[in-house]
Amino acid sequence: MSSAAAETNPIWARVRLADAGDVPNIHRLLRGLAEYENQTHQFTATESSLSATLFPSSPFRSFTILLLEIFPNPIHDDLPNPDFTPIVRRVDLGPVQDPEAATFASAGGGEGAVAAGFVLFFPNYSTFLAKPGLYVEDLFVRGCYRRRGFGRMLLSAVAAKAAEMGFGRVEWTVLDWNVDAFSFYEKMGAEVLPEWRICKLSGGALEAYRGGGDV
Amino acid sequence: MSSAAAETNPIWARVRLADAGDVPNIHRLLRGLAEYENQTHQFTATESSLSATLFPSSPFRSFTILLLEIFPNPIHDDLPNPDFTPIVRRVDLGPVQDPEAATFASAGGGEGAVAAGFVLFFPNYSTFLAKPGLYVEDLFVRGCYRRRGFGRMLLSAVAAKAAEMGFGRVEWTVLDWNVDAFSFYEKMGAEVLPEWRICKLSGGALEAYRGGGDV
Repeated sequence: MSSAAAETNPIWARVRLADAGDVPNIHRLLRGLAEYENQTHQFTATESSLSATLFPSSPFRSFTILLLEIFPNPIHDDLPNPDFTPIVRRVDLGPVQDPEAATFASAGGGEGAVAAGFVLFFPNYSTFLAKPGLYVEDLFVRGCYRRRGFGRMLLSAVAAKAAEMGFGRVEWTVLDWNVDAFSFYEKMGAEVLPEWRICKLSGGALEAYRGGGDV
Repeated sequence: MSSAAAETNPIWARVRLADAGDVPNIHRLLRGLAEYENQTHQFTATESSLSATLFPSSPFRSFTILLLEIFPNPIHDDLPNPDFTPIVRRVDLGPVQDPEAATFASAGGGEGAVAAGFVLFFPNYSTFLAKPGLYVEDLFVRGCYRRRGFGRMLLSAVAAKAAEMGFGRVEWTVLDWNVDAFSFYEKMGAEVLPEWRICKLSGGALEAYRGGGDV
């Protein structure tokens, strides 16, 4: 199964529920996502605004984050959680040079643990199915950890949870020019809905409705 | 302000929070929506599956429905609700022939009240803003009540609530061929995002993830 190189350079990956203690790393990962999408001008989140709005209630019933951590050594998960059993996997893909390892050190993860990515999602609802679903708002893996199956590991964890909870669907959006993402998602079994467009009311256009009355 | 015809035939509209007692009418309205969208083959909701999955927690924090009721006579709202003050409006647009008035009688609304439409929405989250938003899953007004401003009244109520709660956006989707809807939403201040496509994992493709592991 493993090559000689892989045997000498395995890494260990863990996907676990994030909590308020992870906000500094979540903020850094979000900034990384904004940079990747060339949308830093739209990125106004701060650690304190994230702390004030994330984690409002039980995981999977509202906004929920699964964090991907990478470890240089084998880990035996000692973080049992009634809401989500962490997923731990040995990845035999050779060494990774992580120039930001110090910045992304994961305090909750122990010696050498780094935060490498995350997925943020929350429930939505299908009236035709009369079932909740999960909507994936963000999926992000830091550059040096891409193309090693971690994006799939995060999205699979969300899909597995949705199926377990008896939910009807997992949905997310993709930019129409992102051919690699289309191909990746279709391999995972997703269908792309070509006819639907997203409408958004925000900023001053939204504020105009404050206090009621039509605009 | 009002024409002679309108003065003799005003109707009164109320938008209020729906609750479990409204499920029979909600189910009928949803069937009407499925028929309008030619998607009755995808409509599997029943009154009991709706009752089991809607209203899981406080309004505006999870799945929420605002119901539109029409009254033949003036109403003075006696349903104060700490979560949402009902919106009542006199509409001077002349008489409406409602062939389904008996079917859609609204028990909670008093003599002659009928359910005429609804909007279903729930929170979503913008990581760049670090703010929740509201996502509108369904907006529906029965045929005989269309083009009288009730769709706008329902969507405005959602937008007003989002602004009041300090939320960052209201979003929904529209079919790309629905020119009338595009125009209506743009007049309300919404922008249409042309580049984003929706991905969906459902049915067997979702079930394949049950129990964990990549697919």
